[in-house]
Amino acid sequence: MEESALRREDKKVVAVVGAGLVGALNACFFAKRGFEVEVFETREDIRKAKVVKGRSINLALSHRGRTALKHVGMEDKQIVSKGIPMNARMIHSLSGKQSPIPYGKKGQYILSVDRANLNKELLTAAETYPNTKLNFDHKLQDWSAETGLMTFARPHGSKTQTQADLIVGCDGAFSAVRKQFLRRSRFNYSQTYIPHGYMELTMRPRNGEFAMKPNYLHIWPRNTFMMIALPNLDKTFTCTLFMPFEEFEKISTGDEVIEFFQKYFPDAIPLIGAATLRRDYFRLPAQAMVSVKCSPYHIGDKCVLMGDAAHAVVPFYGQGMNAGFEDCIVFDEIMNQFNEDFSAVLPEYSRVRVPDDHAIADLAMYNYVEDKNYNNSYFFVFINTLIQQTEKIGKNNHFDNMVTFTRTRYHVAVERWHWQDKVINRGLLLGAVGAAAGGFYLLI
Amino acid sequence: MEESALRREDKKVVAVVGAGLVGALNACFFAKRGFEVEVFETREDIRKAKVVKGRSINLALSHRGRTALKHVGMEDKQIVSKGIPMNARMIHSLSGKQSPIPYGKKGQYILSVDRANLNKELLTAAETYPNTKLNFDHKLQDWSAETGLMTFARPHGSKTQTQADLIVGCDGAFSAVRKQFLRRSRFNYSQTYIPHGYMELTMRPRNGEFAMKPNYLHIWPRNTFMMIALPNLDKTFTCTLFMPFEEFEKISTGDEVIEFFQKYFPDAIPLIGAATLRRDYFRLPAQAMVSVKCSPYHIGDKCVLMGDAAHAVVPFYGQGMNAGFEDCIVFDEIMNQFNEDFSAVLPEYSRVRVPDDHAIADLAMYNYVEDKNYNNSYFFVFINTLIQQTEKIGKNNHFDNMVTFTRTRYHVAVERWHWQDKVINRGLLLGAVGAAAGGFYLLI
Repeated sequence: MEESALRREDKKVVAVVGAGLVGALNACFFAKRGFEVEVFETREDIRKAKVVKGRSINLALSHRGRTALKHVGMEDKQIVSKGIPMNARMIHSLSGKQSPIPYGKKGQYILSVDRANLNKELLTAAETYPNTKLNFDHKLQDWSAETGLMTFARPHGSKTQTQADLIVGCDGAFSAVRKQFLRRSRFNYSQTYIPHGYMELTMRPRNGEFAMKPNYLHIWPRNTFMMIALPNLDKTFTCTLFMPFEEFEKISTGDEVIEFFQKYFPDAIPLIGAATLRRDYFRLPAQAMVSVKCSPYHIGDKCVLMGDAAHAVVPFYGQGMNAGFEDCIVFDEIMNQFNEDFSAVLPEYSRVRVPDDHAIADLAMYNYVEDKNYNNSYFFVFINTLIQQTEKIGKNNHFDNMVTFTRTRYHVAVERWHWQDKVINRGLLLGAVGAAAGGFYLLI
Repeated sequence: MEESALRREDKKVVAVVGAGLVGALNACFFAKRGFEVEVFETREDIRKAKVVKGRSINLALSHRGRTALKHVGMEDKQIVSKGIPMNARMIHSLSGKQSPIPYGKKGQYILSVDRANLNKELLTAAETYPNTKLNFDHKLQDWSAETGLMTFARPHGSKTQTQADLIVGCDGAFSAVRKQFLRRSRFNYSQTYIPHGYMELTMRPRNGEFAMKPNYLHIWPRNTFMMIALPNLDKTFTCTLFMPFEEFEKISTGDEVIEFFQKYFPDAIPLIGAATLRRDYFRLPAQAMVSVKCSPYHIGDKCVLMGDAAHAVVPFYGQGMNAGFEDCIVFDEIMNQFNEDFSAVLPEYSRVRVPDDHAIADLAMYNYVEDKNYNNSYFFVFINTLIQQTEKIGKNNHFDNMVTFTRTRYHVAVERWHWQDKVINRGLLLGAVGAAAGGFYLLI
């Protein structure tokens, strides 16, 4: 790495704000190009933290994300070896019957990876570049799109300032960098919270082994409720229960938890354990899910947003992290194309990437359909139609493959899928969600 | 007013943030109920200002707005007498031919009113209540949804604090009150800038008389461009030119202005005057237009958003001010219903009003259609179909009447109009925007 680090005489400074997944990966991309990289993170170093707070425990890594990791030489060794392949979804019916629906073509799979471990590996990888410095406990307070000057709050009330040639906002769905964008004219922005919340529950190993078949993404589709479970290396499963906040709030005692699971997820009770369920359901309140879209992603030649800061998506397509990682590749490709000239790279990045990120945000939301005929309830329609279509045509369709197993641009994948027609179908079919004869063909 | 002012022993304090149209009207509504009303405005008192900066010069006042003014006893005397009735649109073809299309039923009209005059009248009306105090040069910096404590910046760097039982955010499309909402979980928000900008030009009287027929809203529909003109009491017309920012930017010399008008609005050149056009086009840059939607409108029992702060709309339906004024009536009705108990009134206000404000925001935008077949240009489709349909059926339709001449809830008007069908039509017809055979039937 010495060579690339010394490529320039007057090294430009790139400040990456946020040391989460996309921030840490981006630091590697910029360091590899020889920039002076400074990463700023509000929280402490998660590699030293006793408790890692926050987001979901595991994630589905698929083709786009793996391709980005490969770009910085760390796909296989640290990541893939620690992920668990999921070759298919495993659908749990109310009666307890389990039916697999494979992903893509034979041999294709997605990987269940541990978020915290992936983040730690990425931070360590970034730190191996001598031209990268990680700064934790730095909370961005203010920055200038004109000068690149940033002000950070430090613990115990002190402040510090740094100037950069480029500020890369990778600070997540509630981005502090993005606040400055919101103050400017002609910046389009939306944040949409869905009426569902989510809650994570752990399913421990039984007799030292996985409590269910490990190489599957387990799904309990129940129309307005849904539970999924992803396998972890320690032979636990992380179960995620999705349901409307008002339903979460109806349950206030251990008995009510068991009653609820008896009704909707009876086969999961012995697997998770009734005592665990009674206790863990009340450990943390249900968490909100937000979809964020904005445009453009840049201001002048000084600042660009990437990852969740630019496009937080709901988790129903398993593409959030993959889209964020792909952002890094797309930016990198445009850097080559425009010879690292930020004044040309940044507008081109917005032009190229906005339609794709908007497409994946819409796709992720598209699985989740409001039905005015059913008291405006939201349904997870995709899984029903997935089951129906798989039964009918015997295999997964091409569209799903494009999104999950290729780098076909998201908006092109959507166009090929005759999006327009489907939207119209969706309008026409809204009354028939339960039976969903339509063309939804999506996917966790 | 003494009587109502003294209705309570322990008067609650209502802080209205923003002394624009909706803020000033709202102050009257709250004062009439006997609250201690404090109005806070960033700018100086426009009644004393030498130059009134900012927004459009005149506005179309219709039924909803007039009803709200009537509630505080000031419809006719100060406002209607100073407005100019517009009984019809007057369509200017490229050849200079003028054809009227009436509003609503015979005798129905909308009023062209002067924004600054209306605002001044409303401020003076608010001040006649002894329980109302207007505070200018107060810029809201921070406030607490828990305590109702607000901090204002004053001129020359000083600060002041005030506490209120209810904070009413009427501070417009770029609301400072709303910023606090954005920091809270489960607040849905979108701001969408359209690719068109607008520019105002003045058409002076000719020989002491209006240069065109006064009792019309004059419209020059040109697909992706549009100009409108509203009459003023001083016998001028305010012309507003709508066009994509990139088109505005193409014109950089006086000759280019004239060339452009020759091509698209030839009959307007002698009316505005070539010399005036050459000069005034460059007076101010084209202004942006934003559509803002959010939900909910309240936090707890302490704060509520109304007017543009809650729902800025694009101007193509002439309902922005009318919707904001109607907010005041709806809130007032709910205050009666729940006996002024803010903890019940505020959630009910959000529940009732959000769908209507979202409906009018969508309607206003619906006139403005992107066509991917024409290089993603945006077209003003409504006016073409308005002309076609009027020619075909010989009269205006019922839907338009409901929106402009009744208080039918916006979302109900939309439902009656078989919105869903039209959306599907719109999808199908998008390729045929030029000919727009479809069901668009809207209106300035």
